[in-house]
Amino acid sequence: MTQNIYDDPQFYEGYSQLRRSLEGLDGAPEWPALRALLPDLRGLSLVDLGCGYGWFCRWAQQQGAARVLGLDVSEKMLAQAKATTSGAGVTYERADLEGVQLPGASFDVAYSSLVLHYISDVAAFFAEVRRALTPGGRFVFSTEHPIYMAPSHPAWSTRGDGREIWPLDGYLAEGPRTTDWLAPGVVKHHRTLGTTLNSLIRQGFMITHVEEWGPTDEQISAYPQWAKERDRPMFLLVAAQLP
Amino acid sequence: MTQNIYDDPQFYEGYSQLRRSLEGLDGAPEWPALRALLPDLRGLSLVDLGCGYGWFCRWAQQQGAARVLGLDVSEKMLAQAKATTSGAGVTYERADLEGVQLPGASFDVAYSSLVLHYISDVAAFFAEVRRALTPGGRFVFSTEHPIYMAPSHPAWSTRGDGREIWPLDGYLAEGPRTTDWLAPGVVKHHRTLGTTLNSLIRQGFMITHVEEWGPTDEQISAYPQWAKERDRPMFLLVAAQLP
Repeated sequence: MTQNIYDDPQFYEGYSQLRRSLEGLDGAPEWPALRALLPDLRGLSLVDLGCGYGWFCRWAQQQGAARVLGLDVSEKMLAQAKATTSGAGVTYERADLEGVQLPGASFDVAYSSLVLHYISDVAAFFAEVRRALTPGGRFVFSTEHPIYMAPSHPAWSTRGDGREIWPLDGYLAEGPRTTDWLAPGVVKHHRTLGTTLNSLIRQGFMITHVEEWGPTDEQISAYPQWAKERDRPMFLLVAAQLP
Repeated sequence: MTQNIYDDPQFYEGYSQLRRSLEGLDGAPEWPALRALLPDLRGLSLVDLGCGYGWFCRWAQQQGAARVLGLDVSEKMLAQAKATTSGAGVTYERADLEGVQLPGASFDVAYSSLVLHYISDVAAFFAEVRRALTPGGRFVFSTEHPIYMAPSHPAWSTRGDGREIWPLDGYLAEGPRTTDWLAPGVVKHHRTLGTTLNSLIRQGFMITHVEEWGPTDEQISAYPQWAKERDRPMFLLVAAQLP
C-alpha cells in the first residue's frame, strides 16, 4: 500500500491551505499547460487517478464528459469531493493507486495530476491504465519532475557569488526519496524521465507531448518570485496515446 | 554556419587526445547503450551526421551496411576518416549540419553522435532527417544532456558538507551556452529534453527509447571515478522511428 500521507492530520492541514486546494484548478500554475494536452471531453468517459477534492472531475463534468470516475486513497478528500459534486455522471471511489484495478477498456481518457511520484511500481500502474483505456485512448498526467525529486537536499542553495542554484545529485539513482513537505517523512519514488517514458512506450503508448513545466512570462509578471522556477523544472507533464 | 570548433587548432589538439578519438567507439563509455538502439544494419543504407574520424561509418561497414554516408564540418577529421577507410560502400562529404541538405527518402537509418548540441535550429534539422529517411526509417542519436548543458557554471561544486553537487540553473532558459572545453568559447545550444522530443514528434517521429545515460556497475568497477556521473546525466540517447 502507498503511504497515505494525505490523511495524515498535519499533512492534510497544510495541503488543504495550498492555493491549489483552496482555488482548485485555477490555483495550480501548471493547469493551463496540462489542460492544453486534453482533447475535447464532450461525450467521453474519464478516469481521474488521484482525484483529491474532485476539482478536475467537476471541471470535466462541466466540459460535457459523459462519465467521470474519480479515485483517491484519501478518505478526507473523497468526502469533500462527494459533498461538493452534484449532478449525474461523476462517481468517486476509494482506491490505493499502487496496485489499483480498473475496469477493462472502459475509458477514453485517463488523467492523473501529481500522483505518479507516490507510486513505486510505475510499470504495473501504466499497464493497468493501458488495460482500462479504449483503443486510441489518451493518458495525460503530471508528476513532480525528476530533477526536482532527485537531490539528497531538494532545496535552493546559494552559491559563493550569491546566485541561487538547484543542488542536483542522485539523478540516476532511482528509488524512494523521503522529504519533509507539510509533514515529516513524506515518501516519493524517484525515477528518471527516460524511465517514465520508456515504461509508457513498453506498454504500447505513443508519446505525444513531453513538457518540463515552467512559469510563463505572464505568470512571472503576476508572481515575480516564480522567476527562479525556470532554473529547474518542478513539474513534468506528459501526454500519451494508444494506437 | 555552425561554429566549426573542431578545426580550431587548440580544440582539435585536445579532442584528438580524448579516449573516444584514440580508441574509437570502444573508447566512448555510452557506445554500448547507443549501439543497443540500432537495428541489424545488414543491407541497410545509413547516414552519419557528424561522422568525425569515421569510426561509426567503418563499424557500420563491418556490420554489413550496404551504403554509409558520413558527413562532417571538420576538414581535418574528414581527411583522417578517408585515410583510414577502405573498401566499398562508405563515402564522406563535408557538410555544415546546420542547414544541411540531404537526398530525399534515401536512408534506412540516420545516426548522429554528440552533434545535436551544436545545432541551433533543431526543428529544421529534424525535418531534414525525416525527409532523408525511408518509411519506417530510424533515427538514433546522442547529445549532451540538457542537465549537463544548462548551468551558468557547468562544473561540480562542493557543498558545505563536502558532498559534490551539480549546480543546476537556467534549465528552462533555452539558447546558446558558451563554455571553455578544450578551447575557449565553444558555443553549444541548450534546449530542454521536452523540446527535443516534441520537435521529433512534430516531424512525425515516434519516440521508441529515451535514455539518460549513466555508467553501468561494471564501468564503475573499472573506473571508480565515474561513480559521480550518476549524480547527473552527461548524455541523452534517443531512438525514434517514422511510421
